[in-house]
Amino acid sequence: MSSHHIVRDDQEPALIIANGAACNAELLGQLLEWSPLVVVLDSAIERVIELGIKVDVLLGDFDRGFDPEIYKTAQYPIEIVHTPDQNKTDLEKAFDYLIDRKIPAVNVVWATGKRADHTITNLTNIVRYRNLLKIVILDDHSKIFLLPNKFEKWYTSKTPISLIPIGVVNGIYSTNLEYPLQNDTLTMGYRTGSSNSVAKDGIVTIIHKNGDLLLMECMD
Amino acid sequence: MSSHHIVRDDQEPALIIANGAACNAELLGQLLEWSPLVVVLDSAIERVIELGIKVDVLLGDFDRGFDPEIYKTAQYPIEIVHTPDQNKTDLEKAFDYLIDRKIPAVNVVWATGKRADHTITNLTNIVRYRNLLKIVILDDHSKIFLLPNKFEKWYTSKTPISLIPIGVVNGIYSTNLEYPLQNDTLTMGYRTGSSNSVAKDGIVTIIHKNGDLLLMECMD
Repeated sequence: MSSHHIVRDDQEPALIIANGAACNAELLGQLLEWSPLVVVLDSAIERVIELGIKVDVLLGDFDRGFDPEIYKTAQYPIEIVHTPDQNKTDLEKAFDYLIDRKIPAVNVVWATGKRADHTITNLTNIVRYRNLLKIVILDDHSKIFLLPNKFEKWYTSKTPISLIPIGVVNGIYSTNLEYPLQNDTLTMGYRTGSSNSVAKDGIVTIIHKNGDLLLMECMD
Repeated sequence: MSSHHIVRDDQEPALIIANGAACNAELLGQLLEWSPLVVVLDSAIERVIELGIKVDVLLGDFDRGFDPEIYKTAQYPIEIVHTPDQNKTDLEKAFDYLIDRKIPAVNVVWATGKRADHTITNLTNIVRYRNLLKIVILDDHSKIFLLPNKFEKWYTSKTPISLIPIGVVNGIYSTNLEYPLQNDTLTMGYRTGSSNSVAKDGIVTIIHKNGDLLLMECMD
C-alpha cells in the first residue's frame, strides 16, 4: 500500500489518475506522497490497484459493463461517484467533483498517451477551469499548466519551455527566454511557441493580454 | 531489410518517421510496404536502423552533436537534408521537402507520445498544409487528418470518431454520427466533438463552413 495517507491536508493538491498511459513509478510515488485525496477515473482502477495504491474516490460513467461495486470492500473506505453525463469527459467530471469539495488544486497523471483525441482534449480543456481549480498535468516527459496573465517563476538555464496557445493569444511578452516574445500573437496550428527554453538561471516572466496560454515544461 | 522498395510509385503517400514514441511493428510494416519514399527525422534514424528499415531521406537540424554522415555508407543511397531553420519543427521541414518534390500525400508515424508539446504541435500544425499536402498522422491508437469542408466516408457502426477544432470551427453538420451536429460551433478548450461514434454501417458526412477541423479515428 502506498503511504499517501501520511499527509492529509486539503491544501495540498489532490491527485487524479486518469485513463491514459501510465507514468513512471517514481513520478507517481512522489505525487502520492503529498496528495490528500486520490481520485481514479473509471476502469483505470484496474491498473491502479495492481500498483497497491489506496484510492479515495472512484469516478466515472462506468459505461462499459464495468462494476465499481467490487472495489467497495477491497478499497474500503472508498467513495464511488457515478457520473453518467455524456457531455463531459470523466476528467472534467472529476474537476467538477473537486470544485464542489472546494479543493483548490489538483495534479493529474495518466491523462496523456494512448488515444490522441483523449490527450488533446485533456490538455486543452483545462483552460475552462481558469479561476476555478489550479490544474497541473504531468507525464514522464511533460508538466503542463495554464498561465495566469502574468507568470513568474525561477528556472535553471536551458530548461525547455513551450508555450501553446489554445486558439489565439495576444499581447505576449517574455523575459529570459531564448526566443523572446515582444507583443507577439500565437495561434494554434499557425504560430505556436513550442521548443523555446530558458536563457539563463533566474526568473522567467511571461505576460499575455488575452486568450488561453498553456505552459509546458518538457524534457526528452 | 524491409521490402518497402517493391512499390515505387510516387502517387502512393510518402512515409515520415518522426521522433516521438515508436508505433507497433505491424502498423509500421503495413505503411512501409506501400511507401515509395521513407523520410526519417533527425536522431530517430538511430531507432529506425535498429529495425532494419531502408531509409531514403534523413532530414533534420542535427543540432545535438549528431553526425548524419555515418549513415551515408550504411544506408547508401540516402539523401541527407540539413534544415537548420529554428522557426520550424523538423516535421514541418519534412512536409516542405515533400511539397518541393511535388509529392501529394504523406503518412506520418512516431509523431505522438513522449513530449506533450511535440505531440500537440505535430497534430495541430498540419492545418497550415491544407491544399498543399494530404497528411495523415497514425499511431497505435489513432488516425488523424484535416477535414475538407465536405467530408464523406463509409464507416462501420460504432467506429469512434472525434472532431477536434483547431481554434474555432463554425457551421458544422453531420449525418450518421451518434451525437449529430446541426450548424454547431466547436471551440478548442471549450466545446470539442471528442468521443463521438458512427451510428450505423454506412456513409458518414461531416460538413463545416469555416475553420480547421481535425478528424481522429481512435480505438482503445
